[in-house]
Amino acid sequence: MPNSALKVRYQQYLDCLNAQAWERLGDFVAQAVVYNGECIGLAGYRAMLERDYQTIPDLRFVSDLLLAEPPWIACRLVFDCSPRGSFLGLETHGERITFSEQVFYRFEQGKIVQVQSLIDEAAVRRAVAQP
Amino acid sequence: MPNSALKVRYQQYLDCLNAQAWERLGDFVAQAVVYNGECIGLAGYRAMLERDYQTIPDLRFVSDLLLAEPPWIACRLVFDCSPRGSFLGLETHGERITFSEQVFYRFEQGKIVQVQSLIDEAAVRRAVAQP
Repeated sequence: MPNSALKVRYQQYLDCLNAQAWERLGDFVAQAVVYNGECIGLAGYRAMLERDYQTIPDLRFVSDLLLAEPPWIACRLVFDCSPRGSFLGLETHGERITFSEQVFYRFEQGKIVQVQSLIDEAAVRRAVAQP
Repeated sequence: MPNSALKVRYQQYLDCLNAQAWERLGDFVAQAVVYNGECIGLAGYRAMLERDYQTIPDLRFVSDLLLAEPPWIACRLVFDCSPRGSFLGLETHGERITFSEQVFYRFEQGKIVQVQSLIDEAAVRRAVAQP
């Protein structure tokens, strides 16, 4: 798959998340997906995303920076949202928070099989600590 | 610059860091380099790296995953080292710590002009908290 096609595929995956179209998640994520070294599988991946949306009803996945070198995608995602309840081990109360995620994805046959994600937890902590 | 040449250039930059060859840092990093949104400049960048080596004498930059799509590089660096003293706001005592950094670099004329870096601070906290 050429660079541009892989980027289109990845954007379709983000669109699927933003639509919370969980019944289509398996079109983009493999059954045996490994997330940060752990084989959580498609069901675990979906459960993680559903939990994220419960905590952050206005969650939106926006790509700020996107590189493709098949079979890999690297993306910087920027979030501007208002979590409610426990998020990254912090108690939040609907504060508006801006933070980023820098993440690598490996694709096989058009589906994500591996994710290495880092979230800017320090930015979240700073935002939650503000009065 | 094609993908492969940019990767070679980036590896030379890592070699420069691992050699602590600070007098050559300006060959790879632009005078007006911006780090995580702040224009720290070459002098500030060098000072940051020198501080890192003071805290972590056995610091070594090893690329675990490297994508190039000029003018951008995305890299997952893995560190296996023993910080001493204050590191990421945590008091360390020579514990051996393994953690990653996921980072994007923009190059102009062969030099790094922009860096977006995230460090896995949670992994460092877990390692330092262990008995």
